Amino acid sequence: MKILLIGASGTIGSAIEKELAPRHEIVRIGRTGADEHVDISDSDSIRKLFERTGPFDALICAAGNVTFAPLGEMTADSFALGLRDKLMGQVNLLLIGRKFANDGASFTFTTGITSIDPIRTGASASLVNGAIDAFVRAAAIEMPRGMRVNSVSPNVLVEAMGSYAPYFRGFKPVPAADVALAYAKSVEGLQTGQTYHVG
Amino acid sequence: MKILLIGASGTIGSAIEKELAPRHEIVRIGRTGADEHVDISDSDSIRKLFERTGPFDALICAAGNVTFAPLGEMTADSFALGLRDKLMGQVNLLLIGRKFANDGASFTFTTGITSIDPIRTGASASLVNGAIDAFVRAAAIEMPRGMRVNSVSPNVLVEAMGSYAPYFRGFKPVPAADVALAYAKSVEGLQTGQTYHVG
Ligand SMILES: NC(=O)c1ccc[n+]([C@@H]2O[C@H](COP(=O)([O-])OP(=O)(O)OC[C@H]3O[C@@H](n4cnc5c(N)ncnc54)[C@H](OP(=O)(O)O)[C@@H]3O)[C@@H](O)[C@H]2O)c1
Ligand SMILES: NC(=O)c1ccc[n+]([C@@H]2O[C@H](COP(=O)([O-])OP(=O)(O)OC[C@H]3O[C@@H](n4cnc5c(N)ncnc54)[C@H](OP(=O)(O)O)[C@@H]3O)[C@@H](O)[C@H]2O)c1
Repeated sequence: MKILLIGASGTIGSAIEKELAPRHEIVRIGRTGADEHVDISDSDSIRKLFERTGPFDALICAAGNVTFAPLGEMTADSFALGLRDKLMGQVNLLLIGRKFANDGASFTFTTGITSIDPIRTGASASLVNGAIDAFVRAAAIEMPRGMRVNSVSPNVLVEAMGSYAPYFRGFKPVPAADVALAYAKSVEGLQTGQTYHVG
Repeated sequence: MKILLIGASGTIGSAIEKELAPRHEIVRIGRTGADEHVDISDSDSIRKLFERTGPFDALICAAGNVTFAPLGEMTADSFALGLRDKLMGQVNLLLIGRKFANDGASFTFTTGITSIDPIRTGASASLVNGAIDAFVRAAAIEMPRGMRVNSVSPNVLVEAMGSYAPYFRGFKPVPAADVALAYAKSVEGLQTGQTYHVG
């Protein structure tokens, strides 16, 4: 399969590449570095990406930014990044990308455990993760041409505990390699409308 | 208690009023009619509402608009109404309203069954409902002064089947009076961070 991997250089993205590269053609994508560049918060940038990559069999997004801040300091503006980037960025990858996707192609998005197990400063992250997990369930039933869409909702990663540990006390971190398996299940399996909770 | 009820004239709002009015002071709020006017999609309008109503013990929002359209016809724009109105409208009621809320005050928002049981044309509804249910879980753990926040996620209402039936074939509709009980549980109980699924 030809797999577009957005966020290829990241903690999760690099584990996905390691899992899938032995069996598939991976197009490595990110804001910087990588084979192709995109900023998922910008629809034009997304459209141009697909014009360059052409048809594909699977798209994985392991990228997405939100604002972390204490709820007491948050205003509507504190939610804007999450809505524009991790939320509508991933929705737009589907809305724009489907025209370039081969029959039976899959979309796999990344959310996170905070939608169900919230943390301090995580209101925007929770909101966005819950939104994408619900969007995936809904979009799946209306996808044409056998196309599929799932999300992967990881616990905090072992590899990210260096910086995230203070926010995730008591969470049992999961190795990136285990998280990568869920993307393989989504891409190489046949399920749709699922959220794979890992860890 | 002094309860601000946004969407008081609606199918759900009028049932909530019937349930709570015998025991509480209800301020009836809507875009038109009602005691006080607000457009929840407009932060300024929300701020002015609270300046007029003053301190309160509970806020209930039984209002919120999203775009219903076949996924195949949706673009990013099709999601804008839901993000601005039902999603950020309810988030802003909390972000702005909390400064006017009495100690121990509660916020109760309205979502809907489509976050877990999706329907044709419902991608934006599902996304927004999932976002608010997750936001409620996260915001609850950071609320100061004993303030609480919950959501009510109703099935389709018996009273709405006249227009909604074609979209909800096979769903067992729930009477508005049963849905209203969940708002009473949220306002008059002590739970927080909950989504009450009704029907
Ligand atoms: N790490 C965890 O423990 C964890 C747990 C649960 C969920 N998640 C979620 O998983 C996702 C990835 O996390 P991560 O820790 O792997 O991130 P990371 O190590 O910071 O890597 C992020 C990757 O995404 C790319 N990227 C960032 N913003 C982008 C944008 N707007 N457009 C296109 N590419 C963009 C980055 O490219 P550049 O470097 O070129 O910008 C980089 O390749 C995030 O949404 C995060 O919330 C992470
Ligand atoms: N009906 C159902 O079967 C059902 C099931 C599950 C969930 N829900 C959700 O419950 C909520 C209310 O549904 P409903 O059927 O009771 O609606 P409805 O009968 O159409 O009533 C909506 C109420 O909200 C007010 N309103 C609408 N937009 C507003 C805005 N931007 N700012 C302030 N007030 C606004 C309306 O006032 P004006 O008339 O003055 O505009 C009216 O009082 C919606 O979010 C809906 O998705 C409904």
